[in-house]
Amino acid sequence: MAVGLGPLPTLHPVAGFELGIASAGIKRPGRKDVVVMRCAEGSTVAGVFTLNAFCAAPVILAKKRVQNAVRYLLTNTGNANAGTGEPGLAAAERTTAKLAELTGVDASQILPYSTGVIGEPLPVEKIEGALQAALDDLSENNWEAAATGIMTTDTLPKGASRQFQHDGVTITVTGISKGAGMIRPNMATMLGYIATDAKVSRDVLQNLMLDGANKSFNRITIDGDTSTNDCCMLIATGKAALPEINRAEGELFAKLKQAVFEVCMDVAQAIVRDGEGATKFVTVEVNGGGNHQECLDVGYTVAHSPLIKTALFASDPNWGRILAAVGRAGVPDLDVSKIDVFLGEVCIASRGARAATYTEAQGSAVMQQEEITIRIELGRGDCSETIWTTDLSHEYVKINAEYRT
Amino acid sequence: MAVGLGPLPTLHPVAGFELGIASAGIKRPGRKDVVVMRCAEGSTVAGVFTLNAFCAAPVILAKKRVQNAVRYLLTNTGNANAGTGEPGLAAAERTTAKLAELTGVDASQILPYSTGVIGEPLPVEKIEGALQAALDDLSENNWEAAATGIMTTDTLPKGASRQFQHDGVTITVTGISKGAGMIRPNMATMLGYIATDAKVSRDVLQNLMLDGANKSFNRITIDGDTSTNDCCMLIATGKAALPEINRAEGELFAKLKQAVFEVCMDVAQAIVRDGEGATKFVTVEVNGGGNHQECLDVGYTVAHSPLIKTALFASDPNWGRILAAVGRAGVPDLDVSKIDVFLGEVCIASRGARAATYTEAQGSAVMQQEEITIRIELGRGDCSETIWTTDLSHEYVKINAEYRT
Repeated sequence: MAVGLGPLPTLHPVAGFELGIASAGIKRPGRKDVVVMRCAEGSTVAGVFTLNAFCAAPVILAKKRVQNAVRYLLTNTGNANAGTGEPGLAAAERTTAKLAELTGVDASQILPYSTGVIGEPLPVEKIEGALQAALDDLSENNWEAAATGIMTTDTLPKGASRQFQHDGVTITVTGISKGAGMIRPNMATMLGYIATDAKVSRDVLQNLMLDGANKSFNRITIDGDTSTNDCCMLIATGKAALPEINRAEGELFAKLKQAVFEVCMDVAQAIVRDGEGATKFVTVEVNGGGNHQECLDVGYTVAHSPLIKTALFASDPNWGRILAAVGRAGVPDLDVSKIDVFLGEVCIASRGARAATYTEAQGSAVMQQEEITIRIELGRGDCSETIWTTDLSHEYVKINAEYRT
Repeated sequence: MAVGLGPLPTLHPVAGFELGIASAGIKRPGRKDVVVMRCAEGSTVAGVFTLNAFCAAPVILAKKRVQNAVRYLLTNTGNANAGTGEPGLAAAERTTAKLAELTGVDASQILPYSTGVIGEPLPVEKIEGALQAALDDLSENNWEAAATGIMTTDTLPKGASRQFQHDGVTITVTGISKGAGMIRPNMATMLGYIATDAKVSRDVLQNLMLDGANKSFNRITIDGDTSTNDCCMLIATGKAALPEINRAEGELFAKLKQAVFEVCMDVAQAIVRDGEGATKFVTVEVNGGGNHQECLDVGYTVAHSPLIKTALFASDPNWGRILAAVGRAGVPDLDVSKIDVFLGEVCIASRGARAATYTEAQGSAVMQQEEITIRIELGRGDCSETIWTTDLSHEYVKINAEYRT
């Protein structure tokens, strides 16, 4: 039921970044469920990680090790290694130790990622047994296979790629992601990997990852449930024949930033488009806020309202539900008489009440579309925020109610 | 599909508080949709009102007038008079002016309440036309009829009553409520009316209402959507032959407080039991918090999680979803290794990970029940909070997706 999400676009290889896929048979025999990514020596690596206090063992380890000279990323599906306590941490360490042994790097240079069932022991031996095959498979041309290899309940693989020229050199940014709910505590989670052959200092790269995630991964929501395993990584291999970017300024940085943001946005929005039971892709745009937080508060309140989400599913232009959500978002001293609300281009509420020009037929026409924008003008200032979400369908309840039964 | 909600219990009349019901034909002819309540002269009246910034016209008026010597409460169903701007305010004023004219009191002594469709003009003439019939119907014995008269999409009327003795005098506390979702922006809202024949000063009464609502109405949630029209009123007629309670202390106050709290709790929980599509009545108990707010943050995060609510609907003891919700509730410096989670009496997670003693069969047995308690021990302090909610069923999506189609 993915909304507006087609087959993978061309995913350009990134010099110095190889991917290898193998089958460890974690959930079922033959399923590709282990992905090893190798970063060329001298690569810089940045990451953003879930803020959930119950973060999984691999997240704890990856957060700690991302400061090191990272050489490998090791991902498994089928088991999240979350809610597993100290033994889970030891298990994650063992898989990276084995990969270190096979590759001759230090285990501290290997970051683990897990996604799948929560609370079950990580099948360490199975993963260890698949590592050599994944290493043998390493290739810069394996992005498509890796995008498929990290899928869990995703219905489609997700990836994006951009190239740009600078001083006659072609720079590539390619990324993949997985996730069909912001959280699947049983089949956790959102993962994203983006690589570029630009050479970027770690500080600049980390800020680029943070900024990019804040405009994309941190602005999508399906059910408001933040996962225990969310991670997004940005790797710069430095293989392109251009000087290092060590300050967040200049033309090269600006071009790279745009390419990274576009790839982030594509693969983040792809997660929403493939959201559990999604029949609509919904953009919630909040303008005229006094600050960014109040724009986000209004946006998320609208995006998470079960009543609005069910109305979207029903293609019902129920503007009262939108006004009510804006009103309860907790914005201090909100003057409702300054608020306008638009559905697509149609003004449904003006100055806090039903717009005089509005007709139900206009609203219905917008709501019939697969991609819908709800725009809220707060009339308080100059800040804006945009959030992407899905509707709430029968299929969502079915997927989540019947997941383990 | 109401969970554990039977026919109305005996609702004892309250001396000095009369109720009259009539039909204005607002949504359909013959439907009882106007309720007038008369408070004896000298009554004190307290109220709590929605915090939604888009509060409805009658709420604006009632909030302003509740400080006065209130004599009448005028309620209509079928139209919420919300999202109606200045004309809505004028309409609410007109209905109370008409009732003032018929009764000889000042309009400032009349509080209006509306519940029903948002954004449509209040049919003032229809309501005015029904007022005399409602006045003719006034009787202290009309609680049952009024409980039915304020229903909108409720499947059952909701009421509770308590009596206690003090110095040989019987004091009565009786209340009714309506609401099947915290918000129905189309068929708004939660309303509660509780009356007692005790004599209580306005300050003490207002604090009693606040405290009572905070432990009951403000602790129930069906979908997290706070309505534009929520109101709960507490009326003390002073007809019982006992001295005025003008301080929040002493045996009489303690007895009254307990009776008011019990009535609040019964009629508030009745709203959850009759919640949209509810198949489970769920108590979320959070103990060991460092302060009340963090207990509430954890409780509401669990109560609003679509993933937990669908698991409850499916009777699936999906403990990973509960841990993940606790972890994302935003409690600062949460030490997950101190957290225990119980499903009924069964310990499902101990010290932040799956309990060694836990078996799926134990969890399933609890989840099969209609009434389920999720207990979370944070291990940070001595504060506790309890919240009541429902599951998220196919029926919920159906009700809200098909409401206007």
